[in-house]
Amino acid sequence: MNLIEELKEKLAPDRVTTNETILDQHSRDESYHTPRLPEVVVFPESAEEVSEVIKLANQYKTPVIPFGLGSSLEGHVIPPNRGMSIDFSLMNKVLEVRENDFLVKVQPGVTRSQLNKELKKYGLFFTVDPGADATLGGMAATNASGTTSVKYGIMRDQVRDLEVVLPEGEIIHTGNLAEKSSSGYHLNGIFVGSEGTLGCITELTLKVYGIPEHIMAARASFSTVDDAVNAVVGILQAGIPIARVELLDAFSMKEVNLYSETNYNEQPTLFLEFHGNEAGLKQDIEFTKDIVLDNGCTAIEFETDTAARNQLWEARHNAAYAYIHGNPGKKLMVTDVCLPISHLAGAIKDARKAVEESGLVGGIVGHVGDGNYHILLMIDVNNKEEIQKSEILNECIVEYALARGGTCTGEHGVGIGKQKYQEKEHGPALEVMKKFKAVLDPNNIMNPNKIF
Amino acid sequence: MNLIEELKEKLAPDRVTTNETILDQHSRDESYHTPRLPEVVVFPESAEEVSEVIKLANQYKTPVIPFGLGSSLEGHVIPPNRGMSIDFSLMNKVLEVRENDFLVKVQPGVTRSQLNKELKKYGLFFTVDPGADATLGGMAATNASGTTSVKYGIMRDQVRDLEVVLPEGEIIHTGNLAEKSSSGYHLNGIFVGSEGTLGCITELTLKVYGIPEHIMAARASFSTVDDAVNAVVGILQAGIPIARVELLDAFSMKEVNLYSETNYNEQPTLFLEFHGNEAGLKQDIEFTKDIVLDNGCTAIEFETDTAARNQLWEARHNAAYAYIHGNPGKKLMVTDVCLPISHLAGAIKDARKAVEESGLVGGIVGHVGDGNYHILLMIDVNNKEEIQKSEILNECIVEYALARGGTCTGEHGVGIGKQKYQEKEHGPALEVMKKFKAVLDPNNIMNPNKIF
Ligand SMILES: Cc1cc2nc3c(=O)[nH]c(=O)nc-3n(C[C@H](O)[C@H](O)[C@H](O)COP(=O)(O)OP(=O)(O)OC[C@H]3O[C@@H](n4cnc5c(N)ncnc54)[C@H](O)[C@@H]3O)c2cc1C
Ligand SMILES: Cc1cc2nc3c(=O)[nH]c(=O)nc-3n(C[C@H](O)[C@H](O)[C@H](O)COP(=O)(O)OP(=O)(O)OC[C@H]3O[C@@H](n4cnc5c(N)ncnc54)[C@H](O)[C@@H]3O)c2cc1C
Repeated sequence: MNLIEELKEKLAPDRVTTNETILDQHSRDESYHTPRLPEVVVFPESAEEVSEVIKLANQYKTPVIPFGLGSSLEGHVIPPNRGMSIDFSLMNKVLEVRENDFLVKVQPGVTRSQLNKELKKYGLFFTVDPGADATLGGMAATNASGTTSVKYGIMRDQVRDLEVVLPEGEIIHTGNLAEKSSSGYHLNGIFVGSEGTLGCITELTLKVYGIPEHIMAARASFSTVDDAVNAVVGILQAGIPIARVELLDAFSMKEVNLYSETNYNEQPTLFLEFHGNEAGLKQDIEFTKDIVLDNGCTAIEFETDTAARNQLWEARHNAAYAYIHGNPGKKLMVTDVCLPISHLAGAIKDARKAVEESGLVGGIVGHVGDGNYHILLMIDVNNKEEIQKSEILNECIVEYALARGGTCTGEHGVGIGKQKYQEKEHGPALEVMKKFKAVLDPNNIMNPNKIF
Repeated sequence: MNLIEELKEKLAPDRVTTNETILDQHSRDESYHTPRLPEVVVFPESAEEVSEVIKLANQYKTPVIPFGLGSSLEGHVIPPNRGMSIDFSLMNKVLEVRENDFLVKVQPGVTRSQLNKELKKYGLFFTVDPGADATLGGMAATNASGTTSVKYGIMRDQVRDLEVVLPEGEIIHTGNLAEKSSSGYHLNGIFVGSEGTLGCITELTLKVYGIPEHIMAARASFSTVDDAVNAVVGILQAGIPIARVELLDAFSMKEVNLYSETNYNEQPTLFLEFHGNEAGLKQDIEFTKDIVLDNGCTAIEFETDTAARNQLWEARHNAAYAYIHGNPGKKLMVTDVCLPISHLAGAIKDARKAVEESGLVGGIVGHVGDGNYHILLMIDVNNKEEIQKSEILNECIVEYALARGGTCTGEHGVGIGKQKYQEKEHGPALEVMKKFKAVLDPNNIMNPNKIF
């Protein structure tokens, strides 16, 4: 028997496919990275099945690439050289809502919007909200974050426990249900962000929050990006417990208006949100108003009703899609550095200059409250010069961040796109990571050629 | 030459000692665990010196035990079989306060009170506050937490970067200065809580916070511990962003009054604190008042002035010392489980019954907002029966927690005292931890016989 025949025996024939369309769907992510077909795609329904599949992969020395939704942006799910894609879309159940513990247990294929729909019934919500409706397995694997991370933290902060199938097929749990623990090494932390290189996540227990009593959103326009960034720094330094603070430059506002049919000011804009009790919120808002006006805010508008607020955040979430939609035939390249907040204004100023000089089409959006911003570039992948220009630009932006204690990727992860910066960013610590990888995955079958 | 001669050559003769008193100080922690003398104590002044010392230790196959203040409670710093204690007390400088980035860089021997004294000049504070004035190196190594963790998180949440000397002498950085990162494996997380088994921490970059605009503290008395715990669950479930919520039972209140010369009600008591803006705080307090009164609170008193508030927290911090002081000749044994919040009331009820049945002298204190509570037992280490009784009690308490998704140690760590529960708590994940240990420390010289 060969691998595919054995797989069909272990799972079921209809959950093992070499159908060209399906192979093609698993050959790419949402970015400019060159697709490559896997050999086969499997659709397991349980951890035990994943374990069987991985044992076979070891036997055949076949690369295994976990696949959530394929919304990643650095080539994370592109097979190295054929290999097997494990698609988690059939493992898509919300298993348990522990209302009183603020915990939820889910399978890895559950998407964030699916989870939030379920949680809403309990007055709860899951905080991490990347721009794509990603799977929770994928979000854990990339350590995703989003607009609310400035208040509630990133994906890693939400993970209490993972069930993981290790590269040799063993099934483990990386944590427990307690709010904190000092028992043994912190495995949750290392599996979150490991991009499928250390195993497959087959179950997640995540922290959730009560929907805040009061929510207020606002849009503040500025004549320059600098002013907007300085306002953010001011808000953070004043210790205002802001729940969201997102930057979109003029170019991005234009794309958003086109795509989302809004008519927001086409100026550099901060989208803000406040969560809390009514009285506290009022005071926070007044203080924030003072700070943004002191920093050259030209107009601030509050969204008082829920519909307008939802529209605002939907528009923000669709910002990247707005670029994709507005530039047919082109592909997305996104920078993703994160820096200490005192360097943010300088970094964005420098990056904007570099974009202008490069002659590329691109704009800025960012989770600026975390010191994380993106340059969104739409590039023609058949135009070598354009690719080269945008890669040089990305490199300049990364160098700037690394020289100031920042990171080459605040939330998207390494994949293949950020591999070249790993040595520079981590120095000899990279050897430690490689040792951990080698000791868990001696045959190097789990998503090989990613991260390292 | 022998090890000690070589050490004297690498450091300086006066920073390498075999003085009996100093060996004795490094033979014990603050708990009932049996002391054992190290062979030698060294006092390095830099990461480079630590690296030299560790290289020698590898050469001589001598165990290395990092030593902060020796305030740990599970035998963490007790040498296995002689070995070398590395004392970090000379590496005690606050290296840099990055006011605008809310970051501070310190050497590992800096204590939390020393750090807070320095930070106060900038209107900043470091949040993690264990009951002992521990070193930041020790606190990172045990993943300590404290009274404010319910709002600001535990030690692991504060660590942005560590400089670590690995078990073979290599010096690495585990993180960076950015608020978040998805670049490579999360080494910060694994080194925090590794209890000196994976290397020596020689520098820490930590997150700090602005001193809150408004702070209000309160004491709420209850006629039963159950009522108090139910009130806490109510506060958490209402989503009130409480900054501190600590439980002391009647017995503990008595010890506190004696030691701290206070005259608080000697009933089960919650110590509470609120941080925020004035208006928000008022509303939170009113809501909290309703909840505690609904849960059988017999009296609630607010500490309006700073001195009374400081006294309150000093009394809480000294609770364990109050027990030690009040029971001369006896030694401290502390349980440390942490559970999902819905199981907290049941756990404490069960634990109290078990203490009463055991006939031991002990009381309850706890960071109950995190689901973490301690039974403080004062035991006569020369009385075998008492030790056995208290170990059985500890075991019952741990079993209860593990059966409900909890952990055997919420904050004190494993040391030698919690080793026996590692297999049960982690299952096959323990093998992953052992692999990480073996691959970084092939000679098993870094604090051997701890955790595993
Ligand atoms: C328009 C747009 C906006 C975006 N905005 C954000 C944003 O704001 N913040 C952000 O962080 N990201 C953002 N992203 C990137 C992307 O959404 C995230 O990286 C997301 O976490 C990927 O999830 P996924 O389910 O699509 O995973 P995939 O792309 O399928 O996989 C991502 C990685 O995770 C691994 N993986 C997937 N499932 C598992 C599993 N069960 N076990 C182990 N490994 C697994 C894969 O092997 C791969 O390495 C955006 C992407 C797009 C297209
Ligand atoms: C009265 C009292 C109250 C306490 N209350 C709390 C509490 O509320 N919360 C809490 O979490 N703990 C508490 N503890 C326990 C103790 O204070 C903590 O575990 C603390 O973190 C230990 O710090 P230390 O500097 O004393 O470290 P030590 O006891 O010297 O060492 C602890 C561990 O860390 C390792 N270590 C020390 N320095 C380094 C370094 N530079 N590099 C690598 N490894 C190192 C040691 O090898 C050892 O394994 C309490 C203890 C007492 C006595």
